[in-house]
Amino acid sequence: MSIALFERVSLATVQRILVAGLPGERIEVAADAADPTDVDIAVVGAPTRGALARFSNLRLIVSLWAGVDHLVADPTRPKDAIITRLVDENLTTTMVEAALAHVLAAHRQHDVYRRAQGDQHWSPQPQSYAPARTVAVLGVGTLGTAVAQAIARVGFRVVAWNRSPREVEGIVVRSGTEGLPAVLREADILVNLLALTPETHGILRKETLSLLPEGAVVINLARGAHLVEADLFELLDRGHLRHAVLDVHATEPLPREHPAWRHPRIDVFPHVAAQTDPASAAQRAVETILAFRAGLPLPNAL
Amino acid sequence: MSIALFERVSLATVQRILVAGLPGERIEVAADAADPTDVDIAVVGAPTRGALARFSNLRLIVSLWAGVDHLVADPTRPKDAIITRLVDENLTTTMVEAALAHVLAAHRQHDVYRRAQGDQHWSPQPQSYAPARTVAVLGVGTLGTAVAQAIARVGFRVVAWNRSPREVEGIVVRSGTEGLPAVLREADILVNLLALTPETHGILRKETLSLLPEGAVVINLARGAHLVEADLFELLDRGHLRHAVLDVHATEPLPREHPAWRHPRIDVFPHVAAQTDPASAAQRAVETILAFRAGLPLPNAL
Repeated sequence: MSIALFERVSLATVQRILVAGLPGERIEVAADAADPTDVDIAVVGAPTRGALARFSNLRLIVSLWAGVDHLVADPTRPKDAIITRLVDENLTTTMVEAALAHVLAAHRQHDVYRRAQGDQHWSPQPQSYAPARTVAVLGVGTLGTAVAQAIARVGFRVVAWNRSPREVEGIVVRSGTEGLPAVLREADILVNLLALTPETHGILRKETLSLLPEGAVVINLARGAHLVEADLFELLDRGHLRHAVLDVHATEPLPREHPAWRHPRIDVFPHVAAQTDPASAAQRAVETILAFRAGLPLPNAL
Repeated sequence: MSIALFERVSLATVQRILVAGLPGERIEVAADAADPTDVDIAVVGAPTRGALARFSNLRLIVSLWAGVDHLVADPTRPKDAIITRLVDENLTTTMVEAALAHVLAAHRQHDVYRRAQGDQHWSPQPQSYAPARTVAVLGVGTLGTAVAQAIARVGFRVVAWNRSPREVEGIVVRSGTEGLPAVLREADILVNLLALTPETHGILRKETLSLLPEGAVVINLARGAHLVEADLFELLDRGHLRHAVLDVHATEPLPREHPAWRHPRIDVFPHVAAQTDPASAAQRAVETILAFRAGLPLPNAL
């Protein structure tokens, strides 16, 4: 059996590291696979829908990305294959840095001062300390937990919400549908790091976003489909929300004509909060594949 | 003898706290002082030049600001009066938050993505980790030391420079004119927190800024007069420097016609990195005055 590589990451780097780390395995680029039915492991970034279908004997799909919603949602994938997510220290570090940068910019009102600069208007704003700001983190998986703890270490008050109950050292985590409103009502700054599932699809909509205090800032670092864009626009335009940072979007790349590009209260980022480091992700893939071949448990399996 | 209060901070708050903390002292607003020669202590924010002159018997000038360059530079102030600077935990905390926000925004290329947004251009940039970035902190007094250590805690490589030799736990500090070039040559991000003295006036000029690596970002949180604006503009326009954050300016408020407002590579902030908290600063003033009256040493004296 062999291992097939799919695209959207630096193939050359990933291939080099897999070859070095997995001697004895036949490793080929998916598009070039001689016999797709002979492949039992796929190493994937974000394969196009249907691309996995012809690999009918797949037993393992190793994702080089942390988010695997696109894989889970693909009805054509071989259903018996286990999916593993990327859990990588480099990815966590880079997500923590992104979240800290956006939270601190929101806290220190960079958006307000940028608009004032556009008007050539010198207008110092009242200043608040981090301990007087509440940051809500939605989703405390690997990334969300690291983010929540890093934000707390900088001095902010942090509250968190997770779909299912979870313990995070030093952070109060509420859970379930009934736990969400209390978290939102307190959040001066909201950071979304939920996994995208049918239950969290569209979770940031008018009904929930309206619970945020007036002047709150929304930072979406998870998936575009968590957010109902029209509802966000309405709350920004009405002045209920002060600002939004959108790293992820319903359609990516964000189409040129999309109104978010030109919205004065939205910062558009091109899905860069935590880019996969190909070398580091490939090393994690090697470890997962070695464990799989040895019949060991796969801690990052869905 | 009595205590006179000068303006530019919330007088009512400061007066209330001084009155409560210093029973037995006569405390009056400077402009209303019945007999200026009877005043021996001045509590000041940023008095206009010459405002202290008529208080000819001053023995102590208690600054509610961390920077006292404007006091030192006023030739009309009573020369025998000791000057004390504000050293206040709240002020330090707020400066640390400001510096972290600006350094993380520079690291994560918020300026680059903002320009891309203006062009409706989806363009993920190569990503670097904090440990791969060197941040240089100029000036390791109370504020600079706290900032350097906080930036290092977030993961950046930090180097520092101070006019006179100084030890900072965990940070390599170079000093003297001969120590500066090595620090600048390594600095992907430069944070200025120097005190303004004749020796540091204009220290950020073509000769020094040119030593920064191509693509560096300059963050000035200290005093406008540290920077030769024309030289900064030239290096930004030539593309040697990527971006600048100017919280302080040669003239404040920054005049409406000043080109920094409209420069696409400059973020203008209206001197808000660390605003004095009047209540907290007044409490520090009470402590300084009590120590002075008791003949104790004044740790924050110049």
